Amino acid sequence: MSYDELRERLGRIHDLSRAASLLAWDERTMMPEAGAESRSEQLATLARVRHEMFTDEEIGRLIEEIRAGLDPDAEPGSSIEADLVRVVARDWEKARRVPAELRAELARTTSVSEHAWVKAKRESDFGALLPHLEKNVELTRRYADCFEGFEDFSHPYDPLLDEYEPGMSTEEMRRVLAELREGLVPIVREATDGDSGEGNGGDCLRGNFREAAQRELVGELISELPFPEGSWRLDPTEHPFAISIGHGDVRLTTRYEESNLGMALFSALHESGHGLYEAGVAPELARTPLAKPRSLGLHESQSRLWENWVARGRPYLERLLPKLRERFPETFEPVDAERLVRDSNRVERSLIRIEADEVTYNLHILIRFELELEIFEGRLALAELPEAWNERYRDYLGLEVPDDAHGVLQDVHWAAGAFGYFPTYSLGNVIAGQLWRAAAADIPDIEERIGAGDLAALGEWLRDRVHRHGRRLSPAEILERAGCGTLSVEPLLDHLRERLPARSIQERRAKPEAT
Amino acid sequence: MSYDELRERLGRIHDLSRAASLLAWDERTMMPEAGAESRSEQLATLARVRHEMFTDEEIGRLIEEIRAGLDPDAEPGSSIEADLVRVVARDWEKARRVPAELRAELARTTSVSEHAWVKAKRESDFGALLPHLEKNVELTRRYADCFEGFEDFSHPYDPLLDEYEPGMSTEEMRRVLAELREGLVPIVREATDGDSGEGNGGDCLRGNFREAAQRELVGELISELPFPEGSWRLDPTEHPFAISIGHGDVRLTTRYEESNLGMALFSALHESGHGLYEAGVAPELARTPLAKPRSLGLHESQSRLWENWVARGRPYLERLLPKLRERFPETFEPVDAERLVRDSNRVERSLIRIEADEVTYNLHILIRFELELEIFEGRLALAELPEAWNERYRDYLGLEVPDDAHGVLQDVHWAAGAFGYFPTYSLGNVIAGQLWRAAAADIPDIEERIGAGDLAALGEWLRDRVHRHGRRLSPAEILERAGCGTLSVEPLLDHLRERLPARSIQERRAKPEAT
Repeated sequence: MSYDELRERLGRIHDLSRAASLLAWDERTMMPEAGAESRSEQLATLARVRHEMFTDEEIGRLIEEIRAGLDPDAEPGSSIEADLVRVVARDWEKARRVPAELRAELARTTSVSEHAWVKAKRESDFGALLPHLEKNVELTRRYADCFEGFEDFSHPYDPLLDEYEPGMSTEEMRRVLAELREGLVPIVREATDGDSGEGNGGDCLRGNFREAAQRELVGELISELPFPEGSWRLDPTEHPFAISIGHGDVRLTTRYEESNLGMALFSALHESGHGLYEAGVAPELARTPLAKPRSLGLHESQSRLWENWVARGRPYLERLLPKLRERFPETFEPVDAERLVRDSNRVERSLIRIEADEVTYNLHILIRFELELEIFEGRLALAELPEAWNERYRDYLGLEVPDDAHGVLQDVHWAAGAFGYFPTYSLGNVIAGQLWRAAAADIPDIEERIGAGDLAALGEWLRDRVHRHGRRLSPAEILERAGCGTLSVEPLLDHLRERLPARSIQERRAKPEAT
Repeated sequence: MSYDELRERLGRIHDLSRAASLLAWDERTMMPEAGAESRSEQLATLARVRHEMFTDEEIGRLIEEIRAGLDPDAEPGSSIEADLVRVVARDWEKARRVPAELRAELARTTSVSEHAWVKAKRESDFGALLPHLEKNVELTRRYADCFEGFEDFSHPYDPLLDEYEPGMSTEEMRRVLAELREGLVPIVREATDGDSGEGNGGDCLRGNFREAAQRELVGELISELPFPEGSWRLDPTEHPFAISIGHGDVRLTTRYEESNLGMALFSALHESGHGLYEAGVAPELARTPLAKPRSLGLHESQSRLWENWVARGRPYLERLLPKLRERFPETFEPVDAERLVRDSNRVERSLIRIEADEVTYNLHILIRFELELEIFEGRLALAELPEAWNERYRDYLGLEVPDDAHGVLQDVHWAAGAFGYFPTYSLGNVIAGQLWRAAAADIPDIEERIGAGDLAALGEWLRDRVHRHGRRLSPAEILERAGCGTLSVEPLLDHLRERLPARSIQERRAKPEAT
C-alpha cells in the first residue's frame, strides 16, 4: 500500500522529468527561435514542481514505512522494492539537505553566468566572466557545505563529484586519473611523434560531403544498431546529445558538417551508445527513478565503446567502406581500409577538447580535473585560472594557448556551475576499456561478428551486464558482476597501444581495393 | 501581493499546460511509435498535476482577496487584473464542481472508448462501439449534472457547450444553426445542381504532386503570412492541427498527399489561421490563463477566414498561380485563374465531414448538432443513432450512407466524449463571415492588397480586434467591439452566394494565361 503510493508519487515525478527532457530536446532540435524565453520558464517550472513533489515529507514517511518491512541484508539487484527504497532514500536525503533558496540562487546565477560566457568567449575576455565564475564557485561551495557529515564525504569536491558519479570519491578519481596520465604520456608521444598534423597524405574524412547523403548514411548505420524497432529518431543539432523521453522513445542527434564526414558519423555512433543504454533499461523499472541511469561515467562508457572500440575499429570500418564508396565515390574509390582506419584514428595534439581524438582527449580532461581540485582545495584563485590553464596545456600537450577563447573559455561547464562533471568523461573511457575486454572474453568472435555486421551479440551483452540494471546496482557493482573487477586503466591503455600501428601508417596507399 | 502570488501559481500551471502541448505536438509529429504508452502516462500526469494545482483552496482564497480590492463595475478589457480574476474565478468554480473521481473516470473511459472506436470504424461495427458510447453519455450527463444552478445554465447541453464555447447557450446555438440551415438549402441546391462531381473537366488540384515540391510551396506561403519572425514551424502529420507552445512558438502542421495538392495547401492555410490567433495574443498576458483563447468558435473563425475567405478567394489564387506553374509546370501551365478559382471552390454532396467543401460542411455539422441535442434531451436512444444519422444524410444531403464507417463512425469526437464540440465548427464559419465583412469595411482595398501579396493589413486588423485580447473579452464582446454586432448568419450566406458563380463554371478553358 505504502509502496504503491510511493511508486505512484515517484511515477508522477518521473513523468514530469521526461516531459522536461522533451522540452530540452525540442529546444535544441526543433524550437523556433522566438520561443526561447517561454521555454526557459517552462523548464524552470518543471524543475521546481518536481523538486517540491520529491522533497515532500510524505515521501520520507513512506520510505521509512516501507523500509521497516524490508530485509536489511538484501543484496542489491535481488528486489526492485529494496533497490528502489535504497536509491530513493539517498536521493531524498540529498535533496532535502539543499535549501530551496540556495537551489533557486544556483539556478538563477548559473543561467546569467551561461549568458555571460557566450559573450566572454566570443570576445575572448576572461575578465568579463570572472565575477560570474567567482559567484558560481562560492555558491557551489555553499552547496557542498550542505553535505557535512553525509555518508563518508570527506573532501569538498566529494559532493560535487557525487552529483555526476554517485558513490565515487575524490580520492579514487584522483588515483585513477593519475594512473591514466602516467600511462598516456608515452602513448601520446609515440602517436604524435614527427606528425605535423597535416601530413600523412590528407585525411579522407575531410572534403566535401553532401548533407543529404550524410543523413542517409548515418540513418542506415543507426538502423543497424541493436535498438528495439520504432524506438528512436535522429535529428541534426549544434552540439550532439542523446536523451530518453520515456520507455521506447530515445532521441539521438548529430551534427552535419559538409567538410567533415567524421563529425556526423562518429557523433551519431557516440550518441547511439548513450541511447542504447537508455533503451536497454529493464521495462519493469519504467516510471521509477531506477529507470534513469545516473552515473555519467557508466553512461559515457557506452558512448565511447560504440564510438571508439566499435566504430573506429577495423572490422566496422571495413564494412563501412563500401557504403562510403557508394555514397561518396569520388572520395572513397581511391581509399583502402588501411587508410580509412588510419584517418578514423588520427592523433593530434590540439587545443580544443571537443575536437580532440580518443588519445589526447584524456589530457584535456586531466587538466580540467586537476584545476577543479585546486580551486575547491583553495590552492588556486580564479583570477589565475587562465595562466594555470595555459601552463598545463604547455606541459601536457606542448601547445601554446593563443587566447582564452581557445583556452579556459572554451567549455560552458564552469560557467554553468557544473564542477565535478569533467572527470566522468575520462572515467567513461576507462570503464569502456574494461567492459570491452570483458565482452571480448565472453564473445570470442566479437571482431568477426562486427565485421559481418552482427552488432546484436555485443548489444545483448551490454544490455544484460549493464543497461537493464538501471540504477539498481552501483557502477562498481555493475563492473564487478560484468567480470571487470575494480576500476583499472590498463584495458584502456592497452586498447590505445593496440591502435598505435594503425595511427602511424605514414605512406598513402594509392591502389584502391577491389570494390 | 496576493495578485503576484496568484499570477505565480497560474504561471506555473500555465507552464505545465504548455509542456503538455509540446508533448501532444510531438506525439503527432515526431514521436517514435514505441513511445506511445509512456506518452499517454506523461500527458495524464501533467493533466492531473495541473488540475490539483488549480483546484487548490488557496487559489479560491487569493481570488476572493484580490476581488475585494477591485472596482466591481470595471469594463472587461480595462484592467488585466480584473479580467484575470473574473476569468479565473469562473474556471475555478467550474473545475471545483467536478469531483476528481468523475474526471478520472471520464479520462479512463474515453481513452478506452477511443481505442474501441478505431476498431469499430475499421470493421464498420457500430454495435462494438455502442456500450462505450452509452458509458460516455452516462458520464457526460453526470458531468453536466455537476453544474446544477451554475450561472444561467438551463439545458443539459449548456455545460457541454460551455466547455468549448464559454458563455454560449444551447438556445442561441440552436437559433443560429437553424437560420444557417434555412439559408443553406437553396445555396447547396444551386451549387450542386446537375454536378456529377467528376464533371467540369477534371480538378487541377488533383494529380501527381511531388511531396518535396509541395513542402517548399507551403513553406513559402506560410512565410508570407503575418507571423512574427522566427516564431513558427511547419511539420507533416496525419490529421493537421496547430498548437502554441508558448509566447513566440507556434507549431503548424499539414498533411501531404501526392495525389491531392489542395490537401496540404488549404490545411496549411487553415492551421495558420489558428496559429496567427495564438501568436497574436498580447505579450503582457503571457503565462496567464488569459493567454489561451478558449472559444473554439472564435478560433475556428480565424482558420476558416484564412482558408476560405483569403486562400480560396480569387485575389489570393491569382497570385498563387505563377507559383504553382513554377513548381508543377505540367499541371498548371494549361490552367487559368478562372479554373483554379473554380477547382478551389468545388461543391459536392459527400459523406465524409472532413473532406467536405465550405458549403456542404455546415450540413454535416448541423446533423451532428441536432443528434447531440436529441441524445441529451432524451429523445434519441443511442442504439438508434445509425438509423437517425442515415436518415438525416438522406434528408439534408440526399445521400445514402453505405455503412457506418462512412456514417456515424466516421468521427472520433463522440467516442472521445467530446459532446458540444461539433457546433463550434459552424459557429466558426458564421463568425468568420462577420469578421471578414467588418474587416472589409475598415480596409476597403482588402482584396487588392491580398492580390498584391500584402497580408499584413488583414493580419494587423485581426490582431487588433480579436487576437490580442486573448480571453480578456468574451466572444460576444469581441464581435461587438469589432463592429460585427451580434451573431448573424447573413455575412456567411452572402459570402457563399457570392462564390456561386465561380463554382458553376462548366467549360474547361484550354488556353493558358501568359506566364
